[in-house]
Amino acid sequence: MSEIKKFAVIGGGSWATAITKMLCNNVTELTWYMRNEGAIEHIKEFKHNPNYLSSVEFDTKKLILTSDINEAVNNADYIIFAIPSAFLDAELKNLTASLENKVIFSAIKGIVPETSLIVGEHFHYTYDIPYYNIGVITGPCHAEEVALERLSYLTIACGDPAKAKIVAKNLSSNYIKTKITDDIIGTEYAAMLKNIYAIAAGIAHGLGYGDNFQSVLMSNGIREMKKFIRKVHKMKRNINDSAYLGDLLVTGYSVFSRNRMFGNMIGKGYTVKSAMMEMSMVSEGYYATKSAYKLNQTYGAKTPIIDAVYAILYEGQNAKKTFKALTDKLD
Amino acid sequence: MSEIKKFAVIGGGSWATAITKMLCNNVTELTWYMRNEGAIEHIKEFKHNPNYLSSVEFDTKKLILTSDINEAVNNADYIIFAIPSAFLDAELKNLTASLENKVIFSAIKGIVPETSLIVGEHFHYTYDIPYYNIGVITGPCHAEEVALERLSYLTIACGDPAKAKIVAKNLSSNYIKTKITDDIIGTEYAAMLKNIYAIAAGIAHGLGYGDNFQSVLMSNGIREMKKFIRKVHKMKRNINDSAYLGDLLVTGYSVFSRNRMFGNMIGKGYTVKSAMMEMSMVSEGYYATKSAYKLNQTYGAKTPIIDAVYAILYEGQNAKKTFKALTDKLD
Repeated sequence: MSEIKKFAVIGGGSWATAITKMLCNNVTELTWYMRNEGAIEHIKEFKHNPNYLSSVEFDTKKLILTSDINEAVNNADYIIFAIPSAFLDAELKNLTASLENKVIFSAIKGIVPETSLIVGEHFHYTYDIPYYNIGVITGPCHAEEVALERLSYLTIACGDPAKAKIVAKNLSSNYIKTKITDDIIGTEYAAMLKNIYAIAAGIAHGLGYGDNFQSVLMSNGIREMKKFIRKVHKMKRNINDSAYLGDLLVTGYSVFSRNRMFGNMIGKGYTVKSAMMEMSMVSEGYYATKSAYKLNQTYGAKTPIIDAVYAILYEGQNAKKTFKALTDKLD
Repeated sequence: MSEIKKFAVIGGGSWATAITKMLCNNVTELTWYMRNEGAIEHIKEFKHNPNYLSSVEFDTKKLILTSDINEAVNNADYIIFAIPSAFLDAELKNLTASLENKVIFSAIKGIVPETSLIVGEHFHYTYDIPYYNIGVITGPCHAEEVALERLSYLTIACGDPAKAKIVAKNLSSNYIKTKITDDIIGTEYAAMLKNIYAIAAGIAHGLGYGDNFQSVLMSNGIREMKKFIRKVHKMKRNINDSAYLGDLLVTGYSVFSRNRMFGNMIGKGYTVKSAMMEMSMVSEGYYATKSAYKLNQTYGAKTPIIDAVYAILYEGQNAKKTFKALTDKLD
């Protein structure tokens, strides 16, 4: 591999747009794939994404914009996936280009519904990518604040620390600080599980619980997350690091979180179906809840919050009654 | 001591009012001391505190209201102090009644400025109260949500678990859940230190940092708090329990927190003096910052957030520059 790495970003949403902005601070060339050809034309002409973070102006001379995922993969050594997990499998079905020797970074915070795997595992088991070529980019980071160049901290995880360092270096700038870790499983599970706790926070808010309870919920949530992740992959990690606790807080306390909004509607009495229709998109946490719950049938971690959210979303249990019972299990 | 314990609440503010409300759910008689005789007359006539949580109606037949702290102390076995720490020493100077064999619970979240001790230590060293007669009532709990009867969780700490249980039982109700612990030092330091982190959160907000940074600050804050408390009193505790992390979050994320407001003004460019004058009262965290910083000169825990807040509040350092330097020490 040459000294200077070539990057591709897969996705046209707000997080993909934010990552592209971060990389553009450091690279001279970058391939950016999105399905929406209209958006590509708009970016070429007006230098901004018409649909997401539209205040961000791009130096389009650096960008190779394409709606062909194979071109993007062929162009790059490092491929950063930043599309909703629900669309990943369908996107990858279009792939004819080889992923061999490619370094795959996931900026997706969720579960691939078709395989019930986190994204790193999905690439590992379905595409035979070795873990030293798999990485994770995680927050706490709202894309909207990247657009505003507000100071944010990213954690870059990879089985191979040298590769984590390369990605970290290329994302860093005066408003982005990065740290690296080898905990690819833990950081990705944390990013996925936090969405379940954000749904729980939303349900609690919708049911009329206040800030006192919200802080108890988050305090129990991080303890539950620690137990769950330890069962999945035991290693030395500080669950209060920004990639775990910070990420939980930025989502759980955000009124803009899609997962929290979804939970809020459930708490206010919407059915799961009507809340989904109202939001016009399924929250990542919806899939995460099912997957975490099912996985935990094997692991057996004590996860009363995940269990309660699962019972409400998938077993048709009454939110008010279920949360009343949950409150007795928290402390 | 008789089977049924007699309680007194010392203080007329919102937290004292909330505690009195909680106790009234369980006791048949309760002595409530406050300095303000006008407020006492108002409560007697109109059944609510005119100045704090005025929506809370009291069954005044249960209340022995007094502006004589000695009467309150003589009336009770368990005395719960809920006044600002800055006024505690002055109040106690009026005391002629003996505190011998009295059980003293602190619901004060701060440092006694005159002795630079947390309240439990102040009673222990200045009034010779043994630790088995000293306890702490801690949140996460905004008094305003107690008034609304929104579900809240309290932690009751005492060197003697039987006494913690008695207080816990008398505070519990359908909207208050309690747990007990013997970590009187750790819970009280956590309650005090969280106010410093709330000031830091306010400064960051005032300087224009966003939610991404706030979550990083809280994540670093709880790690810093853990290190500090471990130096003060090493014992097995889970820093992510509600009494520590939950209490930090409910304050750090509250826009109504007096400490956060104070920090916010500093971040926006007010001088310390003008911010204090504007708030008409000094925030608990102001004293806590000095005390924690000074204590840590002996302990030597790594506390970059406390150090930064101290430099701004007490050494006249520029908030913007100090926080810029702080951001390099967080991760």
